[in-house]
Amino acid sequence: MPSKILSRRDLDFLLYEWLQAETLTSRERYVDHSRETFDAAIDTCERIATDLFAPHNKKSDQNEPHVVSGPAGASVAIIPEVKAALTAFCDAGLVAAGQDVEFGGMQLPCVVEKAGFAYFLAANVGTSAYPFLTIGNANTLQKCGTRQQIEHYVRPMLEGRFFGTMCLSEPQAGSSLSDITTRAEPETGVADGSTDGSYRLFGNKMWISGGEHDLSDNIVHLVLAKIPGPDGKLIPGVNGISLFIVPKILLNADGSLGQRNDVVLAGLNHKMGYRGTTNCLLNFGEGKFKPTGADGVAKAGAIGYLVGQAHKGLANMFHMMNEARIGVGLGAVALGYTGYLHALDYARNRPQGRHPLAKDPAQPQVPIIAHTDVKRMLLAQKSYVEGGLALTLYCARLVDEERTAESPDLRNHATRLLDILTPIAKSWPAQWCLEANNLAIQVHGGYGYTREYNVEQFYRDNRLNPIHEGTHGIHGLDLLGRKVRLQDGTLFRTLSDEVQKTLDRAHQVTALTEHGQALARTWRQLGDVTQALYLVGDLNKTLANASVYLEAFGHAVVAWIWLEQALVAVARLDHPVEQERQFYRGKLQACRYFFRWELPKVQPQLDLLASIDTTTLDMQDEWF
Amino acid sequence: MPSKILSRRDLDFLLYEWLQAETLTSRERYVDHSRETFDAAIDTCERIATDLFAPHNKKSDQNEPHVVSGPAGASVAIIPEVKAALTAFCDAGLVAAGQDVEFGGMQLPCVVEKAGFAYFLAANVGTSAYPFLTIGNANTLQKCGTRQQIEHYVRPMLEGRFFGTMCLSEPQAGSSLSDITTRAEPETGVADGSTDGSYRLFGNKMWISGGEHDLSDNIVHLVLAKIPGPDGKLIPGVNGISLFIVPKILLNADGSLGQRNDVVLAGLNHKMGYRGTTNCLLNFGEGKFKPTGADGVAKAGAIGYLVGQAHKGLANMFHMMNEARIGVGLGAVALGYTGYLHALDYARNRPQGRHPLAKDPAQPQVPIIAHTDVKRMLLAQKSYVEGGLALTLYCARLVDEERTAESPDLRNHATRLLDILTPIAKSWPAQWCLEANNLAIQVHGGYGYTREYNVEQFYRDNRLNPIHEGTHGIHGLDLLGRKVRLQDGTLFRTLSDEVQKTLDRAHQVTALTEHGQALARTWRQLGDVTQALYLVGDLNKTLANASVYLEAFGHAVVAWIWLEQALVAVARLDHPVEQERQFYRGKLQACRYFFRWELPKVQPQLDLLASIDTTTLDMQDEWF
Repeated sequence: MPSKILSRRDLDFLLYEWLQAETLTSRERYVDHSRETFDAAIDTCERIATDLFAPHNKKSDQNEPHVVSGPAGASVAIIPEVKAALTAFCDAGLVAAGQDVEFGGMQLPCVVEKAGFAYFLAANVGTSAYPFLTIGNANTLQKCGTRQQIEHYVRPMLEGRFFGTMCLSEPQAGSSLSDITTRAEPETGVADGSTDGSYRLFGNKMWISGGEHDLSDNIVHLVLAKIPGPDGKLIPGVNGISLFIVPKILLNADGSLGQRNDVVLAGLNHKMGYRGTTNCLLNFGEGKFKPTGADGVAKAGAIGYLVGQAHKGLANMFHMMNEARIGVGLGAVALGYTGYLHALDYARNRPQGRHPLAKDPAQPQVPIIAHTDVKRMLLAQKSYVEGGLALTLYCARLVDEERTAESPDLRNHATRLLDILTPIAKSWPAQWCLEANNLAIQVHGGYGYTREYNVEQFYRDNRLNPIHEGTHGIHGLDLLGRKVRLQDGTLFRTLSDEVQKTLDRAHQVTALTEHGQALARTWRQLGDVTQALYLVGDLNKTLANASVYLEAFGHAVVAWIWLEQALVAVARLDHPVEQERQFYRGKLQACRYFFRWELPKVQPQLDLLASIDTTTLDMQDEWF
Repeated sequence: MPSKILSRRDLDFLLYEWLQAETLTSRERYVDHSRETFDAAIDTCERIATDLFAPHNKKSDQNEPHVVSGPAGASVAIIPEVKAALTAFCDAGLVAAGQDVEFGGMQLPCVVEKAGFAYFLAANVGTSAYPFLTIGNANTLQKCGTRQQIEHYVRPMLEGRFFGTMCLSEPQAGSSLSDITTRAEPETGVADGSTDGSYRLFGNKMWISGGEHDLSDNIVHLVLAKIPGPDGKLIPGVNGISLFIVPKILLNADGSLGQRNDVVLAGLNHKMGYRGTTNCLLNFGEGKFKPTGADGVAKAGAIGYLVGQAHKGLANMFHMMNEARIGVGLGAVALGYTGYLHALDYARNRPQGRHPLAKDPAQPQVPIIAHTDVKRMLLAQKSYVEGGLALTLYCARLVDEERTAESPDLRNHATRLLDILTPIAKSWPAQWCLEANNLAIQVHGGYGYTREYNVEQFYRDNRLNPIHEGTHGIHGLDLLGRKVRLQDGTLFRTLSDEVQKTLDRAHQVTALTEHGQALARTWRQLGDVTQALYLVGDLNKTLANASVYLEAFGHAVVAWIWLEQALVAVARLDHPVEQERQFYRGKLQACRYFFRWELPKVQPQLDLLASIDTTTLDMQDEWF
């Protein structure tokens, strides 16, 4: 039976036939790699995801982490399958898959790493969160931390002994990070008045995934906090934010585990989905523990260590934001993809009803995949999840270019594309692969709505993705308010140049001419609308409908990505193997679906934007 | 604090300012009623829904019905608040709200009854299912049953002593009811070879809401089954289907409770939402109980009584289908509506972020309703839920016309409108009020995704509505394949005439001219597309994209409904009370939102249909 987690055939198509991942092996960083080592890494991911992650996905959902009290304070109990799966993940060296060999890493290209990791996200997004947060944390420290911080915290994370978190939000500061109030006070009181560079943190952090558990020896919190000025006040705004390491258990000078730090679990959030990931409210410095500082005094306050420069916390955290956001997009794709494969399997095996032209009730029922409306729902899912996977892997490929392309120009080129595509790579899958899950339920009918089947969980899990790592609305503002204006529009022009190259190639292929013309028209309008929005001269009006802009832009980008895939597929329709020809036919049909059914949805959006509609801006609170 | 269940102001607007419900009191059936009695009935609904239904909505979700074994077989345990709420509902006489005074009913118009019932659906859809299924069951029997059946089964249901179910689906026959295999064998063996008109039923029924519980003294199952022909075989197709009463506990001749019938709980389905409603797999005639039949022999087989004519079961069941489907639409609206009110309340009270032109971080944060993107999400919800409520109440008003209009012509006119609008009234709210719940979560951000808040449950509950009482796809086929063709297109023309009347009025109002023109254009195209689809001469192609047709048709209908509301509102903008003027402004802004943001989505759908696109039809199983 083919895997219902992901399609390896599609991954191979994207990696090798389209994105030419093998050519990366000519770069110095990847010179020890080959298609064989890439495949072996993905094989490992597929195997562990299939054998150890997928089997407890439902159990994790139905037995979510819960608080248990103990002598050392409240802790979180998690079903044992999670630890077993994570041990296998860590033992396979996957935490360090992208890291330097020097750190025990595999030095895999980002595009291959993400392709492999997609298996875990699709198999069990709840369990996957622990290592992927750890990887994000380790990457941030790798970039901004001191040598000693890397040695003390990154190395154990890469070895799977410590897990990591990101502590950004607070109850009163979610999207508006500038309003955080967690304080980081320089540790003073050492006899000679000098400090050891440590701080004491006080405050409450909200939505901390992986914030408390016993899955690892220690938890390394990366915490945003504000250092008070000489007047004791916090600097308003993002400029006052600094980044700190706050370990759950403090380390001794030799890196061994020492005393308990003053960071404690204050409560768990109970989500609609993503239930396998413990999600915590953490209190820093409430005095439950009184760790002894460099001055030898035991007192309240979570001891933390500044990472990078003071007041540059957000910038340091945002180093990793592109990758984190592509990760969210990939997670949304993975859930959509596995839902699609479940729906496809169900549709092939569930007999129900008959064709419109052969309704003889004495004849047996047909499998529902024979109904055009079911094919519509499957084709829509295929176009969303394969489009989304292609988009996120394209972005991962850009990360590799950014890191290893031959010249600074090429690396900058990749950065520009990555910067403008990141809001799309995060938001588009979060919207449309959730819709894919919605359709997967619909294909299953009443069965899909029950917890006896799997697809309703994917739908619940996926609903998080338009919210975290920047809401849909925030990414609209990021794209229209920031990214398309950066460098006087250079990012947008760079992307347009790439689209044009694709259009030029499509123009040569009869089967794709219609699609190429449609995309050319839409892309031209998108440019015109962007200009028109800024000619208004009133930022409130320019940005009022930024979410629509994001959605129109996203659909245009994915149409381009589909045209790219179609260009590969169309050239292989004469493949000698029937099954291969069918695969390419499917790619072309999904591309046709996207161009006929999806891309036209952009037209009314662009018309609305072009009209500088103020319906929402004009609406008054009192009129609701 | 205003109610977060429904807006009474909006209900009053729809009932009295738009639908002129008061004029119904001139009809003989409603002559004892007045605005005061209507309001009193709705007051009662609002009070019981608020005091007894809403408070246990979350508890019901978190403590769903579960199977307990007892000496009399498996039973279902339900939290006690459900029984208390239902007792209050029954004691207030609401089961018989629409019934004749002769049966202890209130003889309320359907439009008033539905307005009141919307409170229960919004407050607690899980608990509401029990009485509403009972009402549907009672109405069916009232229409098709014998005098004795009505006396024995309907009267106790109206008094709240018995509850009712509908047993249609089977594990192998969901959408395709023609494939049911439950057998109903005439009870024979009475000494003289004659029968007493009873049957023995054998088979398995799936998805039976309220199929087993201890909330009432008895459960009256209405069961679709097939009577074998002389050769013992079941007639294939829908023509073989008959309708039966199968009580859980058989009645003695005097109507008192007698022996246990051979219908038993085989298992529960565990749904994503709607968890408060027990949903069962029931086995009929498996022999767990061996009731004694008219022949004095105790044996396996669930004893049932034919309702109406043999082989006319589906037609008898479908008598109630229009109302049941409007009920589903209303349930979807109610969930969308309460979600919207929760989101509105949250948006007014949650401070986060600042305006694009006033980003000084030293200033306090603004409530999120000040952000244009949040207003967009609230306005979208408002346009969906108020549009949906207007649509479903309009249909309920048509039921009243169908029953009580002065002439047969007027009654037929109402029936025609009702027939063509029913697929819309069911499907449109199921799609768009679910989207409203999606947006309600988004407005809440991370909090909305947690079970500590209410909106995620509404979203889960509402996801059922595109599936039950005919899936989305089935209603597309019903509309395009049946309704628009009936009577040579008379239904569609009748609806078009109504739309034209509205357009004529809108044409006189400057503020609504733009909207009127847009709707006129869309409606004309809708007619053209309908014709074009049938000129194709290939039913497979005609019906291939029926779901898109349903969606385009639905948006056009709701645009019309919004224009109707706007015509009322625009005439009242000079109301002396400021708050009233704001209410009407809100109506007009939501109408403007629908016409600027929503109706244009129909254009690419109509273009797609007009092109007779065969992308989905052409797709092959092997290409997936």
